[in-house]
Amino acid sequence: MKTKMSQDVWITYTPVGTIRSPFTDISGMPIQPAGARGIQGTVEIFREYAEGLSDLDGFSRIILIYGFHKCTFSQLTVTPFLDTKPHGIFATRAPCRPNAIGLSIVRLVAVNGCELIIEDVDILDGTPVLDIKPYVPDFDSYQDEKSGWLTGCNDTVRSKKSDGRFCENNM
Amino acid sequence: MKTKMSQDVWITYTPVGTIRSPFTDISGMPIQPAGARGIQGTVEIFREYAEGLSDLDGFSRIILIYGFHKCTFSQLTVTPFLDTKPHGIFATRAPCRPNAIGLSIVRLVAVNGCELIIEDVDILDGTPVLDIKPYVPDFDSYQDEKSGWLTGCNDTVRSKKSDGRFCENNM
Repeated sequence: MKTKMSQDVWITYTPVGTIRSPFTDISGMPIQPAGARGIQGTVEIFREYAEGLSDLDGFSRIILIYGFHKCTFSQLTVTPFLDTKPHGIFATRAPCRPNAIGLSIVRLVAVNGCELIIEDVDILDGTPVLDIKPYVPDFDSYQDEKSGWLTGCNDTVRSKKSDGRFCENNM
Repeated sequence: MKTKMSQDVWITYTPVGTIRSPFTDISGMPIQPAGARGIQGTVEIFREYAEGLSDLDGFSRIILIYGFHKCTFSQLTVTPFLDTKPHGIFATRAPCRPNAIGLSIVRLVAVNGCELIIEDVDILDGTPVLDIKPYVPDFDSYQDEKSGWLTGCNDTVRSKKSDGRFCENNM
């Protein structure tokens, strides 16, 4: 087994915009876009990046990569919202990751200048956006894949809401 | 149009592991996992994060989020490998992004301690891994989405290889 300790390497990013959503509290939120169908929000891209949005309006879904900015601690084992048993953090989508990076695949409704109108938003208001990529079914859609402990969660994820378990005040 | 300039905010991450692949040169690589079917590699997770891999082996695909560590510049408009016309960087998957973050959905063959055996690898050897998430079709698979300028690229992406256009020496 080839393993080693991490080196003292840091990679630094700066936000390219901010996500606006109806969710101002980390509790009571949908926990995936599948549980946030039709909920609208916006991505406000800072204007120095406006040129980078050209032709994005041809895509009906986009991948948002963002910082879980309210998650100030990490755990390697978590009991996620969708189960009562603990799992390794990398086998979950929980926010308290070693690197607090979030990923949501949302519907792109319109591009108005630097503002993207999006739907299926499961993201906290004020979240810093790190990257936007076009969702391409030929690259990103795989149907018959094993989902481990998340097998059969499809119905639950539509109704389940977050609670405060990943907020610092509730540790 | 609500737009503003970016604030002087920085978000810092540290790699949780390293990707090993047959690709030691940024030219001549597959440009998506769809063009890298069957190509094997490994993810070597640093041992202090080993606990976080528990139960990952139940999933047949994983989402790797990583740094494009050899891309040292960014452009807001690029002519990508799959087209002869320029597009906004956020409408492409090109590496020279404002934040050089890569995303690949690869097949997880096995988990051996801190080493993940993966397939469909389109990633440069030595790439720093920032995060691993389980791929869950219920969350991540959308079939009937518009693919903008990438419509109909499915055949091309399987054979197209990268060239040096996004390497600093070729600017």
